[in-house]
Amino acid sequence: MKFYDWGGAPNPRRVAMFIKEKGLDIETIDVGAKGARLSDDYLAAGAHRLVPALELDDGSTLLGEAMAICRYLEALYPEPPLMGTDLLDRARVDMWERRADMEGIGAVGELFRNSHPAFEGRGLPGRAERIEQIPELIERGRARVGWFFEKFDAQIGDHEFVTGSRFTIADITAFCATGFAIKVCKVQIPESCGNFQRWFDAVSTRPSVL
Amino acid sequence: MKFYDWGGAPNPRRVAMFIKEKGLDIETIDVGAKGARLSDDYLAAGAHRLVPALELDDGSTLLGEAMAICRYLEALYPEPPLMGTDLLDRARVDMWERRADMEGIGAVGELFRNSHPAFEGRGLPGRAERIEQIPELIERGRARVGWFFEKFDAQIGDHEFVTGSRFTIADITAFCATGFAIKVCKVQIPESCGNFQRWFDAVSTRPSVL
Repeated sequence: MKFYDWGGAPNPRRVAMFIKEKGLDIETIDVGAKGARLSDDYLAAGAHRLVPALELDDGSTLLGEAMAICRYLEALYPEPPLMGTDLLDRARVDMWERRADMEGIGAVGELFRNSHPAFEGRGLPGRAERIEQIPELIERGRARVGWFFEKFDAQIGDHEFVTGSRFTIADITAFCATGFAIKVCKVQIPESCGNFQRWFDAVSTRPSVL
Repeated sequence: MKFYDWGGAPNPRRVAMFIKEKGLDIETIDVGAKGARLSDDYLAAGAHRLVPALELDDGSTLLGEAMAICRYLEALYPEPPLMGTDLLDRARVDMWERRADMEGIGAVGELFRNSHPAFEGRGLPGRAERIEQIPELIERGRARVGWFFEKFDAQIGDHEFVTGSRFTIADITAFCATGFAIKVCKVQIPESCGNFQRWFDAVSTRPSVL
């Protein structure tokens, strides 16, 4: 298999982190190119102008969408379980991963894509057409990042991880959103979100992050 | 179990349609209230200000997020399979469902939320704060709906359904996005998307739609 990554982007990063947490040895190809663009080779391969993607061993099947890839790998390599252990646990992990995705990664993406000069005319990923940045989305994205911190702070509470005592894909997605918010978007975790800060600091020490 | 729906909204509708395709008899409660709002009772129950939700038989666990609910029900009631049959098929269904969600439901949501007078000051779902509508998102949303039609037209090709010869959740999500685009947003399937139109007409006749 080959894993197509774009170093630094939070959406593929969660798959990269998932692969490391599983201890898998999958060839990784960074398809980022000059000007914060996807490489011509990657686009020519018929990909959906989006990362991540996983090329299967048949050499032709290209799986896209981060959770489709993770769920595929989870079925092939069940240990350690990162997507829940029993039926209800799986549903809860699924639910909180989705919230981290829509409310965390979605928020930082909105903030970043609409503010960074390198993405001028590319306000949305996945399309070759010119898509204007929309200045109103910068502040809306920033507000959404704050709401994401608050919601996950409350959810984490006294627990070690997002869905309780076990590290899961919900932590991975929430962590990748937060790392990008802090490092790239310069948004800080507010002091009122002490649970979230504690959680973030703990996850930051995992080998899959380093 | 109890299913919390909001009649007409495309995101919960896909779960309602999934339940019907499974032939399940689950009590359904429409939590829509006057002024296109969620009912006070539903919000007071501690929900995430979003539909759908599935209340489990313990009377206290509330599962949110459409695909978390569908995947939970798929595991409990495997027949007929609506989320793929083998490992690779599951991954492909997962991938195309996600695309129908982000590129279809996401697009009509953007168009609708930012244009409809009833959602003035509620440009995003899920929050109690005032969130302004952004006029630029109306046309951007409309363009995205068009790209969604084109991408799925190419994907369907000569096949009967989105991922081949079997009806799946990818069809359900794509259908709910399209039905809302046509009926509520008054966007038409372009004549150039003949495969998509044929698929839409065929899915429209399923008992789960009527």
